Amino acid sequence: MAAEPKRAERHIAAPGTLLLRDRLASGALDALALVESYIARIVEREPQVGAWAWFDPDFARAQARALDAHRRAGRPLGRLHGLPVGIKDIIDTARIPTENGCPLDAGRVPIRDAWIVARLKKEGAIIMGKTVTTELAFMHPGKTANPHNLAHSPGGSSQGSAAAVADGMVPLAIGTQTGGSVIRPASFCGVTGYKPTFGAIPRTGILPQSPSLDTVGVFASDPAGAALLAEVLFGQDDGDPATHTEPAPALLTATRTPPPLPPVFAFVKPPGWADADPALHAAFAELVAALGDQVFEVSLPDIFAEAAAQRQRVNMAEMAYHYYRYWRDGADRLGPATRAGIESGNATAARDYLSARDVPRVLNAALEEIFNRCDAIICPAATGPAPRGHDTTGDPIFNGLWTFCGTPCLSLPLLIDAGDMPMGVQLVAARGNDTRLLRTAQWLHDWATGDDTMTQETS
Amino acid sequence: MAAEPKRAERHIAAPGTLLLRDRLASGALDALALVESYIARIVEREPQVGAWAWFDPDFARAQARALDAHRRAGRPLGRLHGLPVGIKDIIDTARIPTENGCPLDAGRVPIRDAWIVARLKKEGAIIMGKTVTTELAFMHPGKTANPHNLAHSPGGSSQGSAAAVADGMVPLAIGTQTGGSVIRPASFCGVTGYKPTFGAIPRTGILPQSPSLDTVGVFASDPAGAALLAEVLFGQDDGDPATHTEPAPALLTATRTPPPLPPVFAFVKPPGWADADPALHAAFAELVAALGDQVFEVSLPDIFAEAAAQRQRVNMAEMAYHYYRYWRDGADRLGPATRAGIESGNATAARDYLSARDVPRVLNAALEEIFNRCDAIICPAATGPAPRGHDTTGDPIFNGLWTFCGTPCLSLPLLIDAGDMPMGVQLVAARGNDTRLLRTAQWLHDWATGDDTMTQETS
Repeated sequence: MAAEPKRAERHIAAPGTLLLRDRLASGALDALALVESYIARIVEREPQVGAWAWFDPDFARAQARALDAHRRAGRPLGRLHGLPVGIKDIIDTARIPTENGCPLDAGRVPIRDAWIVARLKKEGAIIMGKTVTTELAFMHPGKTANPHNLAHSPGGSSQGSAAAVADGMVPLAIGTQTGGSVIRPASFCGVTGYKPTFGAIPRTGILPQSPSLDTVGVFASDPAGAALLAEVLFGQDDGDPATHTEPAPALLTATRTPPPLPPVFAFVKPPGWADADPALHAAFAELVAALGDQVFEVSLPDIFAEAAAQRQRVNMAEMAYHYYRYWRDGADRLGPATRAGIESGNATAARDYLSARDVPRVLNAALEEIFNRCDAIICPAATGPAPRGHDTTGDPIFNGLWTFCGTPCLSLPLLIDAGDMPMGVQLVAARGNDTRLLRTAQWLHDWATGDDTMTQETS
Repeated sequence: MAAEPKRAERHIAAPGTLLLRDRLASGALDALALVESYIARIVEREPQVGAWAWFDPDFARAQARALDAHRRAGRPLGRLHGLPVGIKDIIDTARIPTENGCPLDAGRVPIRDAWIVARLKKEGAIIMGKTVTTELAFMHPGKTANPHNLAHSPGGSSQGSAAAVADGMVPLAIGTQTGGSVIRPASFCGVTGYKPTFGAIPRTGILPQSPSLDTVGVFASDPAGAALLAEVLFGQDDGDPATHTEPAPALLTATRTPPPLPPVFAFVKPPGWADADPALHAAFAELVAALGDQVFEVSLPDIFAEAAAQRQRVNMAEMAYHYYRYWRDGADRLGPATRAGIESGNATAARDYLSARDVPRVLNAALEEIFNRCDAIICPAATGPAPRGHDTTGDPIFNGLWTFCGTPCLSLPLLIDAGDMPMGVQLVAARGNDTRLLRTAQWLHDWATGDDTMTQETS
């Protein structure tokens, strides 16, 4: 693999998500038939993988039947008509349990859908079920195993969503990222994970952990699938002051638009690089060599070394406020990581919090100069393959930086280690430049897989 | 004064500001002649009043001469053509000292104008000089005395701006309010003070103390003057994320538009009312009686009792962050009130800060029901007349609530105590409803003064 890095194989050779969508729209494929195939996969594999917090096959079937009837009646179809989507269990679903991965929320059933769930329904998606989250979307692991090797962690916190897509239980899933909760599990599970620019997707009806950081993201088998799902989620809602009224970018079109010139990548070794897995170092050396003169290496200024600690400070302080009720009512029933995080936040001074919250402005100013010279930053999505065991969800150090900056980023499952465990390649673009990120990601996906059928087969 | 409350007399019977503006625009009045009259007043009274941190008559004359030449050349005139404006000394002015009322900033000369100063120049205003602020716009008094009685406080923190307008040294002046720093000095000095909706006026280039609260406000002799000045300051700037791109409201037109029906006022006795000056209680009883069936009394829900402490928490925490440099480099050279405020902020926990910052949402929800039933809330602008002595700038308890809520408010100099010291009547409207506030304020001004010449003389 000197000239071209190997890619992680998917467990299920599912057809491209766009192809599925087109077949569903044309009537070549019934939503019910598609859902039945995913249900069969879930029934077979869920005992081992443990991706679902709530799953009822009849609930999925009922939606599929209604959508098939809707199509047969000739009525206009949503952009996700008939596509099953897994929903992380910190995202409210009306009349369906949403337990936030926390024993203190056992039996909690919201009355209203989160903004994004309402949007999914409007676009004809099938709510396939609720996927496992770490406790309160922090670091205490849930029950999910890595589909590539059940003895390994799937990552966190959106572990059920990543594993369900990786295992072919669902073509699309939704997660959230406050530190590295979309990109890291995508890397560990060998799927595409995409975290849009901060503020692009409304968080109304989603458990707030750290509103300065919390970002909705998506999982799919390829960039086009991620673009398809994310595009319908972009929007504005008064319930989320981070959102804005600018028109949603044409993400899907971007993945189908070849770059006018071969894209140029800025290779960044982020803080923590030296401590990363040797397999990751080796794979990146090959990847960079293969990209040749399309890549240049760039060093981040010294201030980036502090970013992880500063992001942590913002995260813990806001978490201590938003999770106060959990801590007050049941600190002893929380996982030790959750409790320690809240208590670290309790001890954070307001002045230090405010100081930390100002750091991204400086970081983004420094990044601007880099983004002016490339299509995307290229860097690892995690410090190595998924760690063995289920006591940890892995190290988010290569993710938190970009969450803190609010920059869009995407992980592609392009690398594997000697044990065939996937490792993600992360692309990062400037805030607001999600279309360029997706165009570049699709190019890299096609280049690395030698596959250009996706963009030709679909329209 | 049973049927009609007395109003505070102005020291200088200056002509209405709109009349001045129209005479300047038509050429009936030269800017230089006007400026000379104000310079004469400043030269006469400044030794007693101490309203100015920086004042150079030749600087004012040079601007006036240039503006007169501009007009004579037949070129288009700005909306404030030839009108002198006093600028609080925490607002940056290029090449003119801006010392923030703080010995640690002695000799500080900014390179750039604050956004609002650039806007004033563009609109043809004359930058008359820099007005005295309390130290860092907090509570440690500056040198200014109350023009109505030099032994009394002018209030704070925008004390020089309020006193300069009250004493006829300048027709218009700009201040800022984080607690009660516009409305209180306006009340004590017997002028109109207006604090617009939070986020209406960009703060770029102004010393930040507590960005969740800091609001630019204006001083004038009447609501129309305040509207004239504020209207040109409304705007959006990327340097101030609290600002927005909505079109600036027609404030001046609002003051000239009679209400379609006699306005209705909701009389509120805010937290702290029971401890206010008996003269204030008596004057308000008369005012409410005189307004008859145009006023109804309403009680604020219990949660408002906590608002002052919660606003204080936000203020101190953000001040501790933004004034950290002053505290680190020279805590022993700061006034005791400034130092104590910063140190209180240093001790504030992030969780408590975040909790306090969420309170206005609840308060505004409760206010909505009141604003739906009235044109404006009517309440006192301060707890009584200006206190005697210069050790304190008075109690901001009747102001901080509205700053916290971000609601627009305005103080009219309609009441006096037995010693002829002015007391302001405060009007408050819902966020974003500045036009209704000004229309109602102009009505109350005309009603109380029996004067409707202002709106008829000018166009």
